[in-house]
Amino acid sequence: MNPVFIEKSLKAFLLEDAYFSDITTESLSQNKKAKAIIKAKEDFILAGAVFLNSLFKLMENDFKISLFKQDGELVKKGECIAEVESTDRAILYIERTCLNLLQRLSGIATKARKFAQLLEPYKAKITDTRKTTPGLRFFEKYAVKIGGGVNHRMGLFDAVLIKDNHIKAVGSIKRAIELARRNVSFTTKIEIECSDLEQVRQAIEAKADIVMLDNMSIGQMKEALNLFKGEAIFEASGNITEENVQDVAKTGIDFISSGSIIHHACWVDINMKLE
Amino acid sequence: MNPVFIEKSLKAFLLEDAYFSDITTESLSQNKKAKAIIKAKEDFILAGAVFLNSLFKLMENDFKISLFKQDGELVKKGECIAEVESTDRAILYIERTCLNLLQRLSGIATKARKFAQLLEPYKAKITDTRKTTPGLRFFEKYAVKIGGGVNHRMGLFDAVLIKDNHIKAVGSIKRAIELARRNVSFTTKIEIECSDLEQVRQAIEAKADIVMLDNMSIGQMKEALNLFKGEAIFEASGNITEENVQDVAKTGIDFISSGSIIHHACWVDINMKLE
Amino acid sequence: MNPVFIEKSLKAFLLEDAYFSDITTESLSQNKKAKAIIKAKEDFILAGAVFLNSLFKLMENDFKISLFKQDGELVKKGECIAEVESTDRAILYIERTCLNLLQRLSGIATKARKFAQLLEPYKAKITDTRKTTPGLRFFEKYAVKIGGGVNHRMGLFDAVLIKDNHIKAVGSIKRAIELARRNVSFTTKIEIECSDLEQVRQAIEAKADIVMLDNMSIGQMKEALNLFKGEAIFEASGNITEENVQDVAKTGIDFISSGSIIHHACWVDINMKLE
Amino acid sequence: MNPVFIEKSLKAFLLEDAYFSDITTESLSQNKKAKAIIKAKEDFILAGAVFLNSLFKLMENDFKISLFKQDGELVKKGECIAEVESTDRAILYIERTCLNLLQRLSGIATKARKFAQLLEPYKAKITDTRKTTPGLRFFEKYAVKIGGGVNHRMGLFDAVLIKDNHIKAVGSIKRAIELARRNVSFTTKIEIECSDLEQVRQAIEAKADIVMLDNMSIGQMKEALNLFKGEAIFEASGNITEENVQDVAKTGIDFISSGSIIHHACWVDINMKLE
Amino acid sequence: MNPVFIEKSLKAFLLEDAYFSDITTESLSQNKKAKAIIKAKEDFILAGAVFLNSLFKLMENDFKISLFKQDGELVKKGECIAEVESTDRAILYIERTCLNLLQRLSGIATKARKFAQLLEPYKAKITDTRKTTPGLRFFEKYAVKIGGGVNHRMGLFDAVLIKDNHIKAVGSIKRAIELARRNVSFTTKIEIECSDLEQVRQAIEAKADIVMLDNMSIGQMKEALNLFKGEAIFEASGNITEENVQDVAKTGIDFISSGSIIHHACWVDINMKLE
Amino acid sequence: MNPVFIEKSLKAFLLEDAYFSDITTESLSQNKKAKAIIKAKEDFILAGAVFLNSLFKLMENDFKISLFKQDGELVKKGECIAEVESTDRAILYIERTCLNLLQRLSGIATKARKFAQLLEPYKAKITDTRKTTPGLRFFEKYAVKIGGGVNHRMGLFDAVLIKDNHIKAVGSIKRAIELARRNVSFTTKIEIECSDLEQVRQAIEAKADIVMLDNMSIGQMKEALNLFKGEAIFEASGNITEENVQDVAKTGIDFISSGSIIHHACWVDINMKLE
Repeated sequence: MNPVFIEKSLKAFLLEDAYFSDITTESLSQNKKAKAIIKAKEDFILAGAVFLNSLFKLMENDFKISLFKQDGELVKKGECIAEVESTDRAILYIERTCLNLLQRLSGIATKARKFAQLLEPYKAKITDTRKTTPGLRFFEKYAVKIGGGVNHRMGLFDAVLIKDNHIKAVGSIKRAIELARRNVSFTTKIEIECSDLEQVRQAIEAKADIVMLDNMSIGQMKEALNLFKGEAIFEASGNITEENVQDVAKTGIDFISSGSIIHHACWVDINMKLE
Repeated sequence: MNPVFIEKSLKAFLLEDAYFSDITTESLSQNKKAKAIIKAKEDFILAGAVFLNSLFKLMENDFKISLFKQDGELVKKGECIAEVESTDRAILYIERTCLNLLQRLSGIATKARKFAQLLEPYKAKITDTRKTTPGLRFFEKYAVKIGGGVNHRMGLFDAVLIKDNHIKAVGSIKRAIELARRNVSFTTKIEIECSDLEQVRQAIEAKADIVMLDNMSIGQMKEALNLFKGEAIFEASGNITEENVQDVAKTGIDFISSGSIIHHACWVDINMKLE
Repeated sequence: MNPVFIEKSLKAFLLEDAYFSDITTESLSQNKKAKAIIKAKEDFILAGAVFLNSLFKLMENDFKISLFKQDGELVKKGECIAEVESTDRAILYIERTCLNLLQRLSGIATKARKFAQLLEPYKAKITDTRKTTPGLRFFEKYAVKIGGGVNHRMGLFDAVLIKDNHIKAVGSIKRAIELARRNVSFTTKIEIECSDLEQVRQAIEAKADIVMLDNMSIGQMKEALNLFKGEAIFEASGNITEENVQDVAKTGIDFISSGSIIHHACWVDINMKLE
Repeated sequence: MNPVFIEKSLKAFLLEDAYFSDITTESLSQNKKAKAIIKAKEDFILAGAVFLNSLFKLMENDFKISLFKQDGELVKKGECIAEVESTDRAILYIERTCLNLLQRLSGIATKARKFAQLLEPYKAKITDTRKTTPGLRFFEKYAVKIGGGVNHRMGLFDAVLIKDNHIKAVGSIKRAIELARRNVSFTTKIEIECSDLEQVRQAIEAKADIVMLDNMSIGQMKEALNLFKGEAIFEASGNITEENVQDVAKTGIDFISSGSIIHHACWVDINMKLE
Repeated sequence: MNPVFIEKSLKAFLLEDAYFSDITTESLSQNKKAKAIIKAKEDFILAGAVFLNSLFKLMENDFKISLFKQDGELVKKGECIAEVESTDRAILYIERTCLNLLQRLSGIATKARKFAQLLEPYKAKITDTRKTTPGLRFFEKYAVKIGGGVNHRMGLFDAVLIKDNHIKAVGSIKRAIELARRNVSFTTKIEIECSDLEQVRQAIEAKADIVMLDNMSIGQMKEALNLFKGEAIFEASGNITEENVQDVAKTGIDFISSGSIIHHACWVDINMKLE
Repeated sequence: MNPVFIEKSLKAFLLEDAYFSDITTESLSQNKKAKAIIKAKEDFILAGAVFLNSLFKLMENDFKISLFKQDGELVKKGECIAEVESTDRAILYIERTCLNLLQRLSGIATKARKFAQLLEPYKAKITDTRKTTPGLRFFEKYAVKIGGGVNHRMGLFDAVLIKDNHIKAVGSIKRAIELARRNVSFTTKIEIECSDLEQVRQAIEAKADIVMLDNMSIGQMKEALNLFKGEAIFEASGNITEENVQDVAKTGIDFISSGSIIHHACWVDINMKLE
């Protein structure tokens, strides 16, 4: 990620929590040298360790972080993720912001990894959506990638996705794709959401780059892929779970998107202790 | 919430998603009058509807929102939450930011309500923690309150909470509370985390306002409360679940805090369709 | 464009010019009702009129703008673009920011239109680059589109463009495209800069979405298109001028990119007078 | 320039281009040590090299810039401006922002130098105006000075300039100058725009510090200067070109202002290559 | 003042006080229509009323402010300054920010008025300095003007003031003025601080626009003015009080600057009550 | 204080003063090594020295500050507070921002110390209010603490204070306290403003944490404390001066709040000279 973006975000996170002061730490800390250990309290895929350095830099010029695990690695319960040598003040100020980020992102990476493993025997890749926590989008999508998922578009600005509401607004799939093609950059892919075979046919005719099969049955998806495989990238979407993701993959689909990879990910348990 | 804070946050959320443009909508929208319906696709406690007005104001001067449900109300699957009359452009730009906020916050309110109902027969109230999503803290805590929970401190700035790391830094509970008392405002409460009966005794002697019984057994908690009930506010903390929360409440504790009320809340299903 | 982005940008532009005060206007203005006419002093394609409303809203709640010309229209010397009814104070504060934006953007639209007209008999479309004025990128690219050009990628964030420096960094075209494919969203196109036929061949083999023929001769471009037409989108780049753009188009290329469409566009002459 | 202002501006420029990520570089870079050369591809006056250090600091703590040319120096085609030792990642992220700034500013400095050389035999100095690119004002004015021009007022906040619209608003030149004198700081100069001799006479009587002869003929300017030379600073304004600037200078005028020094400056050609 | 600057500042002030919420008002307010009266509790010159409208706009779209007194008017103890019809919520949120601004600014205006009245029989005008409260500069200087004072330069950006430290840095008064003249805009005045007659002589020779007689005795000032009156603007500076200001004025000096007009101004007493 | 908050604030202060440039220093400075001495010109309690390091870091990477006095220490006229080794440019840019902060904060600390000394024989502590300069709140409250005072709540967000306007809005003291108790965090204290004995009685019955005796006579205060001492924290408020503060303390009150500790504090005299 862009270091300027990271710094700006981390500053916002720390200001949210501490505003003008961490009144407890300011009252108690002697601002002396201290060492903290960040440790896993369950098994998970690590994500977010890459931001530790930028986070501590907000507090101190002089500190040392030893990372024992890298983003994307499996961490086992009880294992040490990192050791930070800094001041007690810096550590106490940052502790919760640091853990909130690590716990949220590692939770997402862990869920992404599960999906990725379920899909290993298949061509299909798991991908995220724009159903992300307001304010944390790019961090959450980073965690998906770290876990082995593929990112869908990052926002409204980097790819076209024509949805039912858009089609309703302009009248037809054909017209929607034509308008998009005329108005957006040639460097931008155009995806369209289809809910039945007839829509898929229209999308293919209009030369959509990506066709989203939205909430279709396994049968419908198979039929669509039989007819049009290779003529566009196909994405399956709608109520994807760890239980049904392999059935969807068996249709031969290219990508399977799941909002739940982010919004149903569970925080993992990590703590940070002064030695 | 502070309207200036709300506006600033919502602008950040919309900029995150759309940056300079929603390229799909800009390509397709005719910027004509349109109506959208926000509808529940499962049962939940609503939270976040209060921000709809400020969100649409970012796009348009002239729009009308009819709220059929208020924050805190139970919404049943299929029920209509709100109807928005605006332009297709405004609705398409805002749709996902709006839903991400409503789905996340309603999920939290729904989980808070469950805990609140479990605790109805008891004196104890459920409360949140600082384990929140970076960047969304005050919105998430708002949802806890809407659901029937009580907020714990909002950040590092509005109450003292002395934890194990702080005690380690200064040497003893007595010294920690004395230092805090001397250094923070007399309008600020001082809470201290205790992990055994001896620590509780020291906290009470040092006149802590709130004593957190951290990861103690039901038995230990009962003993602590037998000895010191009424001499401070008592809070139970550590691995609280819907399963064990009533057992904890039976000890006579005042507050039970649970990070999971926020970080293990599930998104609820809501959609928004152009009519 | 995103209204939140527009408002933020226009505020920055006005703050740059006036900082805490327009000391001349504050000293002289009676803050009384006034009318201003924005008039063309030469022929050009208008761009930027769409921002007038947001600009005046920064100063006043109550004003009226009558647009006689729309963005994209040819305006003739002496023609009236808009009439604004507001206060003398608002008009005097905003005058230069308003004109600077209109003059710069209309200059770009006018240059884009010239290229677009030269290319009318051909398949090729003219497109911009990332050679834009720092801080004004999205406004300048908007003007290109208004003038009849097509936008290239908007920034480093919305499409992959592998350049000589990147290839040097990873070793080969093949490896570069593979790495990009693995790491970026499937919704993102991958373009690669090639400077000879051998590179084009490798790019096609690695299935680049877009191949940029960078600083190739007309002859080389023809050869490349003969061999690989239809297997990717082809873009010609490097020292494109109004003089040579038709020769390039005759090769059958899909897009012709020119930084000069923005960075060599000339301000057009517009003024704004109190009636 | 103020280092806090520079840092804030450069961050905005880099965020504009890369937003959350340079997806190409993040996919390809090995984040290894690399060296880049910034080289002139035509002759020009260098401006902007002074910002290189602040720009690289946004990406890395540890880098080294060797400047072979300083701002204000003539750089010959093929000459090396600077060598940067950093990482491939930092260089690839920053390349375009860096070049856009250098190319734009050096173009302005080069144009300013041409005017300055034409005026060398005369008393008159060339000066810029407020016709600058929104968002880049202070950088563009810096380039004018580097090139040998003199800055006019920087914005609406640092000097009074009474224009036709202001005179219209208050009724007369006399009244306008009186009002300004009464209301602004005594540390602020008052300039007034005059379009004929009668207005100049009134301006001199009202003791304007600077009188702008706006769009007057050479003959009128001579007459004005004959009558009032030394009683104020005189500035010539309106359609100044490299062709007519010496004729204007021969009138004995003090300053000649030209918006074109900035808005008609051409980007110069510079590149940056990984070694 | 620039409305964009005012809005930005007032938002910062309100965020400082309320951050995410006014927890008292949010707990108690019924958000019903309410009326508040702002009343003087002592005599003073009013300053800041001009910002009331922008302040309430941060909270509500729909409110009405009736101003009974204007900035610059003498308000007598017990008199009503304004009546606001809005909601109890808006009034309670804003009350203190509003009063802090009015009380601080009116205190300054009142002190400025006292100086202005003492100087009425003389040519000299009272002026402020850059000794202002960090973050409130332009508001405080606005109050000085409202009270009848004249503003000195607003910051480091709008006029040159060469002080002892600068002279020390370059070697001599002559060289300092020459360097400044060469480097800053011709629209910018150059002032220099002199502490004895010899320095004044050098400043006059170097054609300084303004000469500050810094901490000179009445006798020295008289001598300086006898010698050089009319050859520059003269400003007296250093330990000016209400007691000695007339003695200084009698020397015939043009301006007398006093930091105390701002930093020793006393808050006036104003309150705001719900009806 | 939070280092992220400090940096953000200091940047704003420096931008306010210098905006895009300190034009004097940029014209004159040779950017050579220089040493500056910060010296007391009267006796006072120092506050703000703790920010010097962060302030210089905005200008330079490489500088050295030797602090001879710490915040909270008595500094005697003529004593040296600090010596800074940096560049003349950095020192000249920062001088006034630095002094404005030190002079304002030390003035507050000095006034706080006077109150604290007057109260030394008594139980009562002096405390500040929310009557602070907009934009400088947390710095001013820091200075109160440094001087020996105790902070009251920091803003509207960290403690409940129910005032006459709030009571008017909801009807009664009882109802106001109940509503607050129900709606705010259990970690938050509730204070209520009472103006007579009957109100105090109601406040005690409703179990307010803190009771403010607002503008009561010494006699009334004594009576209130006789009746309810120990049942809440008692705070005296209203027109507290150095003259009457001991009389109020003799009532046995816990805290005495005074807005004047901040808003009637006088700047102390400090200067900064290049060696």
